[in-house]
Amino acid sequence: MPPTVKNEGYRTADEMADRQRVISVSEFFLKNRHLLGFDSGAKALVTTVKEAVDNALDACEEAGILPDIRVEVFDEEDGEFRVAVEDNGPGIVENQITRIFGKLLYGSKFHKLSQSRGQQGMGISAAGMYAQLTTGKPLHIISRVRGDKLATEMFVSIDTAKNRPELHKKAHLKWNRTHGTRVEANLEGHYQKGPHSIDMYLKQTAIANPHVRIDFTDPRGGHVRYDRSSRALPPRPQEIKPHPRGVELGRLIQMLGSTNSRTLLQFLEHEFSRVGRKTAQEIVRVAALRLSERSHPRHIAHAQASALYRAIRKVPVSAPRTDCLAPIGEALMEDGLRKEIDADFFAAVTRPPAVYRGNPFQVEVAIAYGTPGGVGLEVDAGGHIHKTGARKRAAGAEIALSADEPAYLLRFANRVPLLYEQGGCAVTKAAIQTHWRTYGLQQPKRGLPVAPLAIVVHLASVWVPFASEAKEAIAPYPEIVKELKLGLQACGRKLSEYLHRTQRLKREYDKRSHIEQYLPHVGIALQEILGLSDAERDATVVRLDDVLNKKRKV
Amino acid sequence: MPPTVKNEGYRTADEMADRQRVISVSEFFLKNRHLLGFDSGAKALVTTVKEAVDNALDACEEAGILPDIRVEVFDEEDGEFRVAVEDNGPGIVENQITRIFGKLLYGSKFHKLSQSRGQQGMGISAAGMYAQLTTGKPLHIISRVRGDKLATEMFVSIDTAKNRPELHKKAHLKWNRTHGTRVEANLEGHYQKGPHSIDMYLKQTAIANPHVRIDFTDPRGGHVRYDRSSRALPPRPQEIKPHPRGVELGRLIQMLGSTNSRTLLQFLEHEFSRVGRKTAQEIVRVAALRLSERSHPRHIAHAQASALYRAIRKVPVSAPRTDCLAPIGEALMEDGLRKEIDADFFAAVTRPPAVYRGNPFQVEVAIAYGTPGGVGLEVDAGGHIHKTGARKRAAGAEIALSADEPAYLLRFANRVPLLYEQGGCAVTKAAIQTHWRTYGLQQPKRGLPVAPLAIVVHLASVWVPFASEAKEAIAPYPEIVKELKLGLQACGRKLSEYLHRTQRLKREYDKRSHIEQYLPHVGIALQEILGLSDAERDATVVRLDDVLNKKRKV
Repeated sequence: MPPTVKNEGYRTADEMADRQRVISVSEFFLKNRHLLGFDSGAKALVTTVKEAVDNALDACEEAGILPDIRVEVFDEEDGEFRVAVEDNGPGIVENQITRIFGKLLYGSKFHKLSQSRGQQGMGISAAGMYAQLTTGKPLHIISRVRGDKLATEMFVSIDTAKNRPELHKKAHLKWNRTHGTRVEANLEGHYQKGPHSIDMYLKQTAIANPHVRIDFTDPRGGHVRYDRSSRALPPRPQEIKPHPRGVELGRLIQMLGSTNSRTLLQFLEHEFSRVGRKTAQEIVRVAALRLSERSHPRHIAHAQASALYRAIRKVPVSAPRTDCLAPIGEALMEDGLRKEIDADFFAAVTRPPAVYRGNPFQVEVAIAYGTPGGVGLEVDAGGHIHKTGARKRAAGAEIALSADEPAYLLRFANRVPLLYEQGGCAVTKAAIQTHWRTYGLQQPKRGLPVAPLAIVVHLASVWVPFASEAKEAIAPYPEIVKELKLGLQACGRKLSEYLHRTQRLKREYDKRSHIEQYLPHVGIALQEILGLSDAERDATVVRLDDVLNKKRKV
Repeated sequence: MPPTVKNEGYRTADEMADRQRVISVSEFFLKNRHLLGFDSGAKALVTTVKEAVDNALDACEEAGILPDIRVEVFDEEDGEFRVAVEDNGPGIVENQITRIFGKLLYGSKFHKLSQSRGQQGMGISAAGMYAQLTTGKPLHIISRVRGDKLATEMFVSIDTAKNRPELHKKAHLKWNRTHGTRVEANLEGHYQKGPHSIDMYLKQTAIANPHVRIDFTDPRGGHVRYDRSSRALPPRPQEIKPHPRGVELGRLIQMLGSTNSRTLLQFLEHEFSRVGRKTAQEIVRVAALRLSERSHPRHIAHAQASALYRAIRKVPVSAPRTDCLAPIGEALMEDGLRKEIDADFFAAVTRPPAVYRGNPFQVEVAIAYGTPGGVGLEVDAGGHIHKTGARKRAAGAEIALSADEPAYLLRFANRVPLLYEQGGCAVTKAAIQTHWRTYGLQQPKRGLPVAPLAIVVHLASVWVPFASEAKEAIAPYPEIVKELKLGLQACGRKLSEYLHRTQRLKREYDKRSHIEQYLPHVGIALQEILGLSDAERDATVVRLDDVLNKKRKV
């Protein structure tokens, strides 16, 4: 006999209370792993490489080291791959290794305001968690800090129920690097080429990071080197304090409660960026409401904090500092593109810094345009017009421009390529909203321009608002979309000038070709009329050619 | 003199180690609040109402109570709103209140496999966190459990640095409800009407939940009631165990390590859905590799677990149970639509259950089609064709159909309306990929059909893979998109039949109108020829009309 079903499965408040549980952040993301970029085997491989390389680059730059990165992917059969990423960075202090690789939400970049690739303290541990889920194998880490005799080797996984690292094995060993870190992950995956590939991620990383050298060995044994084109490290971004205009009332109340400052004036001066003595005094004066400069921050009531909040909005405060940002720069943007994309025309624009929610950010845009047909025209110093030679094939994944396809969009956030979720990205939104017809290109409604064009967009910010934890698209905050459009328009105007000039050049080239065909006949006619010697005739033809080319300025 | 800058800000491995910190999950989501649906004031209001109402409905249904929900939004001036949601649910046991409202990742629904609206244990605490951030005010909760003399009142906020609740005030008070919960949040927001409004969320909730009554008072003093059209609670979804085919190798290893079963055979039978004694024996036999039915699960090595994992993939296992799902059903889907949308034709399809990653799910699709011009044609029992009357205006937010606009898409996941991120949703993808031209509608390339059509899609699952924590779009898993398309196609075929029939009806109606015009003249002619009385003539005309209508079947 079946047991009596109590209330058809209905529950009382007490029974519901018994079922309440704490959910660990690891369990949450394990179940929602598509949020972290692990929704397919192909994407899992790319995301794992990306998280490891991003960490390596951040560490090298923070330590002032020109990054040399080695990426290897091995096919272990039955759908299992081993991904290894090795750097020449500063290494990781031994007691930090387990937490950095075996705990979600642990890191050095979340609590500060300055530009870095990582910001969440999740990426590499998430890759480890996915590896563990699909193959049951822990991460294998080797790291050596400069000055240490031996390297530390560890095998680390995550106890997902508690979001805590588990150390399986630890050893000290000799390593041929004096400093650096190597991490290996065994995971289920699928290796592929194309626009969503490790190859493409590395190629685009090389474009946005001309100071980086990357060696990649793919699971089919192929090897590519992306060499550095610059030996200058990007300027080290400075950390800043929050700008008062970006702080919400609730956060202000929290800051008042936890500050070490003993007077309101000190609090305003010490905890915020761009608030000096005078501005602080003015804020307190405008807030009024029984507040004084000497009020103790911890004794400020809700209504007073509200008044302070409104005062901060009224009193003029200088725009945030921008040395927290490290844009790539117009010259390097353009160089990076020239190195990796075959095209005829290049242009780059770095916009002045702007602010969203108190966070400084900066937009950079570069474009590469390839004349349909594959060769363009150029003018030499003597005013002669030549066809340019067939373009060389660049290393690694190919970014091919086509006159019949939508422009190739390359998106970067803090120098990291974004390969997925193009449709949901602020960059795509801005590129679609830009009127490319104005600049001489075709553009379908609600689409990217159709042209042999690559558009590179870089957003540098102390806090990039990503549309998901997988950091594949930038959330379309209005202030950001506006700046992106201004950058795109500036490049569009340069492209428009080039296209006009190319058209003129084309017409001129055709005319000159025509004249050049007849010049020898003109020479012979002149020889007959003026009785010139053969040498005189030839010299006249050369001079005529020269004069014609010089006079017809292009 | 400025202080010497050490290494231009570069850091050693030791200095980097000192900067590593644990990041609390609350801090993470506070900084990334757009991930939880709090990226604008308008959205923050909708999300807050949504999270509170979803919880109220889940609690009522779990307790077997027909839900009566009251939603009030008050304008507190200066951009501040107070949102109150009150239910007649079972109430919350006092010692659970602080954690349910003041801690992210705490709940009863994450660790089980059965259909519910909430699944993350984040929503209402996130709303509280946003309220606290923007106004500095805690959540205000009143709750009474049936049988308790007094209700409990609490003011709760979150200590975001620790993801822990803070209780500001607690009291016991008389309350006119015998059981239920009321939650109030003060937050910065922006109240608006339209497709992304509280009004639309509530209207769509009423469509997908015909057993629910909702009273809504908006901040402008307007009041709408969405009354229930059914007094039957949805069947209570059962909890299931994981299906063996949906379990990854790493998870299998974890389960082996933590099970209470003492033999492998027991383990397979007890921990999985659809594995009986025979299937379990077969799995062990296929796995071979020195495993026996009596092997202790905790002593199984990695290679053996791998073999077990492969065996599970080879041995046939029945499809997952589906009593964990509570679809709305074709009849109620159609009723819900009829009640809220003015249209002429309605159809609904509930697909059989399917599976993605071991998770059962079920797709339902309903459509409403309004004849352009606003009135249609219908045939009565006697075969007469009539014009239908002008359609009534439904309560609350309007879902207007237009012949010149893309179809209105209503998306639901576990009976919850999804209002945002339509572009990134599996439902939209499936609707765009459906060939609506086949069914007689216009459809632009890569777009929704252009027709006076509402398309309602419901996905019921034990675990809905949302594209972000804000639960606004369903991630496009291929298995899900496929099922969605099959459901849309089934409704498309029904629509196609209706459209053909309507066209025939229209032609027939025109013909009959023509005949009816001449019938009196035929009567007079017959009267003259046959010498009928006036009464005989009129009776003949009536019979003629009748015969003509009946013979011309439509």
